[in-house]
Amino acid sequence: MESVVLDGLLRPKSIAVIGASTDPSKIGYTVVDNIIKSGFEGPIYPINPSADEILGLKVYSSIGDCPGEVDAAVITVPAKFVLSVIEEAGKKGVKGLIIITSGFGEVGNKELEAEVVAKAHEYGMRILGPNIVGTLSNAEKLNASFAPVLPLPGKGALVSQSGALLIAMDMATFTRKVGFEKLISIGNMSDVDFADLVEWLDNDDNTSCISLYIEGFKDGRKFLNAAKKAKKPVIALKSGVSAHGAAAAASHTGSLAGAAKVYGAAFQQAGVVQATDLGNLFDLSLALSLQPAMKGDNLMVVTNGGGVGVLSADAAEKYNLPLKFAPKELQEELKKHMPPFGSAKTPADLTGMAGYDWYHDSIKAAFSHEWVDGLTVLYCETAMTNPMDIAKGIKKAIDESGVTDKPVTVSFVGGENSEKAMQWLVENHIPAYAGPDVAIHAISALREYARMKEIVNEPEEKIENVDRAKAMEIIKAAREDGRNALTEIEAKDVFRAYGLPVTTTKLSKTEDQAVELANEVGYPIVMKIVSPDILHKSDAGGVKVNIKNDEACREAYQTIMANAKAYKADANIHGVAIQEMAPWGTEVILGSVNDSTFGPTMMFGLGGIFVEVLKDVTFRVAPVSTKSAARMISEIRGAPILAGVRGEAPRDQAVLAETISRYANMIVDLADEVSESDANPVLVYEEGKGLKVVDARIILK
Amino acid sequence: MESVVLDGLLRPKSIAVIGASTDPSKIGYTVVDNIIKSGFEGPIYPINPSADEILGLKVYSSIGDCPGEVDAAVITVPAKFVLSVIEEAGKKGVKGLIIITSGFGEVGNKELEAEVVAKAHEYGMRILGPNIVGTLSNAEKLNASFAPVLPLPGKGALVSQSGALLIAMDMATFTRKVGFEKLISIGNMSDVDFADLVEWLDNDDNTSCISLYIEGFKDGRKFLNAAKKAKKPVIALKSGVSAHGAAAAASHTGSLAGAAKVYGAAFQQAGVVQATDLGNLFDLSLALSLQPAMKGDNLMVVTNGGGVGVLSADAAEKYNLPLKFAPKELQEELKKHMPPFGSAKTPADLTGMAGYDWYHDSIKAAFSHEWVDGLTVLYCETAMTNPMDIAKGIKKAIDESGVTDKPVTVSFVGGENSEKAMQWLVENHIPAYAGPDVAIHAISALREYARMKEIVNEPEEKIENVDRAKAMEIIKAAREDGRNALTEIEAKDVFRAYGLPVTTTKLSKTEDQAVELANEVGYPIVMKIVSPDILHKSDAGGVKVNIKNDEACREAYQTIMANAKAYKADANIHGVAIQEMAPWGTEVILGSVNDSTFGPTMMFGLGGIFVEVLKDVTFRVAPVSTKSAARMISEIRGAPILAGVRGEAPRDQAVLAETISRYANMIVDLADEVSESDANPVLVYEEGKGLKVVDARIILK
Repeated sequence: MESVVLDGLLRPKSIAVIGASTDPSKIGYTVVDNIIKSGFEGPIYPINPSADEILGLKVYSSIGDCPGEVDAAVITVPAKFVLSVIEEAGKKGVKGLIIITSGFGEVGNKELEAEVVAKAHEYGMRILGPNIVGTLSNAEKLNASFAPVLPLPGKGALVSQSGALLIAMDMATFTRKVGFEKLISIGNMSDVDFADLVEWLDNDDNTSCISLYIEGFKDGRKFLNAAKKAKKPVIALKSGVSAHGAAAAASHTGSLAGAAKVYGAAFQQAGVVQATDLGNLFDLSLALSLQPAMKGDNLMVVTNGGGVGVLSADAAEKYNLPLKFAPKELQEELKKHMPPFGSAKTPADLTGMAGYDWYHDSIKAAFSHEWVDGLTVLYCETAMTNPMDIAKGIKKAIDESGVTDKPVTVSFVGGENSEKAMQWLVENHIPAYAGPDVAIHAISALREYARMKEIVNEPEEKIENVDRAKAMEIIKAAREDGRNALTEIEAKDVFRAYGLPVTTTKLSKTEDQAVELANEVGYPIVMKIVSPDILHKSDAGGVKVNIKNDEACREAYQTIMANAKAYKADANIHGVAIQEMAPWGTEVILGSVNDSTFGPTMMFGLGGIFVEVLKDVTFRVAPVSTKSAARMISEIRGAPILAGVRGEAPRDQAVLAETISRYANMIVDLADEVSESDANPVLVYEEGKGLKVVDARIILK
Repeated sequence: MESVVLDGLLRPKSIAVIGASTDPSKIGYTVVDNIIKSGFEGPIYPINPSADEILGLKVYSSIGDCPGEVDAAVITVPAKFVLSVIEEAGKKGVKGLIIITSGFGEVGNKELEAEVVAKAHEYGMRILGPNIVGTLSNAEKLNASFAPVLPLPGKGALVSQSGALLIAMDMATFTRKVGFEKLISIGNMSDVDFADLVEWLDNDDNTSCISLYIEGFKDGRKFLNAAKKAKKPVIALKSGVSAHGAAAAASHTGSLAGAAKVYGAAFQQAGVVQATDLGNLFDLSLALSLQPAMKGDNLMVVTNGGGVGVLSADAAEKYNLPLKFAPKELQEELKKHMPPFGSAKTPADLTGMAGYDWYHDSIKAAFSHEWVDGLTVLYCETAMTNPMDIAKGIKKAIDESGVTDKPVTVSFVGGENSEKAMQWLVENHIPAYAGPDVAIHAISALREYARMKEIVNEPEEKIENVDRAKAMEIIKAAREDGRNALTEIEAKDVFRAYGLPVTTTKLSKTEDQAVELANEVGYPIVMKIVSPDILHKSDAGGVKVNIKNDEACREAYQTIMANAKAYKADANIHGVAIQEMAPWGTEVILGSVNDSTFGPTMMFGLGGIFVEVLKDVTFRVAPVSTKSAARMISEIRGAPILAGVRGEAPRDQAVLAETISRYANMIVDLADEVSESDANPVLVYEEGKGLKVVDARIILK
């Protein structure tokens, strides 16, 4: 369905309230009252078969009776009546349904919810909800909800899966002084979901940033695609990231919380900025709704106090945007706008004597300098200077610099005058915060946003030389054999079909054949039992390494077969694998899972103790571009091992990145067949020498 | 000097202002004005040779002329006059000097600063400053500073090394609604330092919590000891923890910022709660000044909204206090105070309908239940309930429970009514915050404080069987030899003198002696070149392992000597070490450094790649108790390896902890001699089988 379809829902020219009430204690009264009070300019039609007038408005007994067109209908009647009022709304030609009523999927009544959606779609209507607070927009002058007031005006939109939180945040916009253009309650997401809203809001002229409070997705991949395409910043606060939190989330909304790591990876891939907590969601919404992305790493900090300056340097390192010293000529320029005991290094310390002039002059110089990619201005209130003067100096300097493609954030530490000055700055579209670390966190989010978008906006890569038919043939054969676990040889054949460099592995069914294949592969070799009934090959005495000649090969064949039979007498034994013995390399692991929210998802990490003890692994929802794979390699803690430590040559990270990307392509291509898989260990060699997948495992769906 | 000596400085009964001025633009005027305005009840003596009256007060031409006793003198005259006015103050019998004047150590004028201190001490006077804002106390009704007003009243004291930040934070107490009883500017700490203030404030009846903004210590160990002894919570915000931040701090105050890791370790050892940023310093000051420590891990959360509930569960995990489900009987009790669709699990979700009664009843039940060690109450403002009612329900339930030894924190998310209700709670000594994660962070700090104090309050352990004389003899011999690096054999002998289990290592000077000693030690053995001129023994071909018999021993001796001579013809060769070959074990590293702030400091980590690549190490200022050593072992990321992974038996962590403790004792005992040392690798065996130090290194001062 087209994005414009949501216009009737979110930008209605006329609105009906089905279940409007004359009783002020009822939601059906509150909603009508709210729509009127918010100043909605189109016709409002209260619907109630047993009333004549509500709050001075004429009441209609059914939606069919309304004299004009009705774009949106707010529904507040009990759940059992919803289906029939939808039918009427459909016949009337309503475009969007805002179903406040609860008692659907969230209490297990999923069947009714599905019927409601089916009925609405029959008439081409879209549904927000059910089980929501409603929707609020300053631009539309519309509070179609039971939240008490329109939020403090701002430029961002907030979509919340928790209704209670939406109401509380609505009120908090006034105390936190962070406004929103829109608040949208999304509830059960029976129809319109986060992805739809991201798409629609991305095209809404009144919205500059999209903030989301998420408990769980129904279709993670749909969200991922919508967020990737968004031209505006998307911020997500994902709750239920702890094990206990996930349990609480599940009982709360009935949606399954995905693994925190996979969500984190998906947000990163989609260029979605992750908020750390509720306060941070407000803070980042302010910055990302008012300021452009930060396109480079050079952050300038200007301060009047060494203390907050040092705290900002600490915060910059914490938030992955470490301060650097500016070029000499900029330092020389800055020195003109401070006393001799000031410091032109980053942070530039104008000293406590700095007033309007020094702030203005130094900021203007810094902000227009090409080295500077972003600016954070700090001010510690003093008895000698006036916060509002400083605020005006900042604003004027920014304006006069003529620079509009770099971000600026501000922090004032002080009392009421500082608060008023910060409020003035925010009204003038400069985000201001009560602590230096918060201002730094905010600008670092603008930097992180740009960094993520660089990868998100890469062209998609087409992986070549793939033999899908071959892979499907192997999988089909295993299924016909009644198995859902491929043998190592089969798994390697599938990997090979997707161009992954696996060790040569052949199946021998007799001792003579073993010797023959060993000579084909070339000594030294590894020999392993091949049996779908023996999963732990080493435990069964089914593995022999470093076999150097025919004699040893024969001996090993006999031993392995004898051990296997002793281990499990009735095992179905395919034979003994004759495998190239790969030289030593750095062990890594590649793997995939089928995430319940995001589908095929790629994992990468260093092997052995790193994966088993340190859990030093990283995820990406597949497919994964080579560049994104390179970021996976560099973001694990053990990354220096691959970059080369203790005088060792760097490992072949280019081929590793390509292999990860290929592997990810494979799990997408085989998404309907493969449930889990891994290549473990993969031995990575020196730069230019590639890698080898030594063992392979594929579990079918 | 006794703690009481600071009474004259911080609790004066009379005060003089030396450098008092009639010019309102001068600090000498502001200070007099501030003292008057703050309501100080004792005599105020402005001192100025060329004025008669300031702000209605009689002016004295010198402090000697003041009619009564003078407890404290605030000094605002230029630096060059300070020495002479101190002389006069001393003669007058002044007890404390509050030296606001700058232009001393912070601009390199250290000599004058030292003279000032010497002169003050001559007369038994203590100095706060120089280069400070002054000191402010609500209880004393005294603003002896140039900060504009007394802070919003509260129960904690704040000591700040940054004057600008102190002024800004003073004003911010009103906007953040977090009060302080005292603000003390500490400046150059020429005399009174953090340790002195911690000690004095710990005995001050008006102070319940001590908050510190620290840029650097002059004497870390003095602070450590004072903080350890403190019976009240101490909170530290240490700035300059990043590399860049440390550089900025150094240029700002001239004090050297210690390594972040060592500071972190020292704070933990002293039971000092570390604030993460400026906002967090306010937040934690509120909680720790109003609430008792949390003595167990069972946190109950009560909420009216699932959304904030889930966010609190996430935060609890993040802040190391993961939520657990309460016992059945408590759940049953809680169920009585919520609708059927509420949840009695943690968080207990009373649902959006919860008002005064349900909050009151469920909190009273939970808070008085023995399972509960601490409580966080969350409230999401709704249109149906009144925040002030909820606040009163919380307060009444806490009071009626009769429980006073468990902490409670609160979060209200909402608008102005929520803000007012939270302010009321704070006035009633219940810390309340605008976000669920902040309330959880605050209560987790109360838990962490109790955890740390458990270790801090352990009785000191006396390490026995130490042969200090033997160690000193070895060190003396090396010094006489003109060396500051001990050989491996010497270092092991020092370790042995302190009871560390080193591998038997003997020095052979001839081939025959090598064989003789090899038989004494017992085959297999390791043989190594011993030469102060060959540090990289392996590179020089100077190491042979797994020597199994006399013949191999002779051959190895010859080869090692030949290699050594080939490597460095003029090397001073002591001989060849004959060393017991320790069986394989888990590699760990023990080491020590002499930290510039804290002195002898212990390091522990897993060996090999863990220390070299992952920097997976942890520190403690020495000495280190066995229990503290056990915490070191468990806090490294690789801890599971020592606990036993992949079916391996657990390592002997008891002996490891004892060895760390012994090692730490050694570096304290030899603090005047040893600059750095390490035992690397140390091989740790299965439980009950101890460990062996395989290689040792000691660098002398």
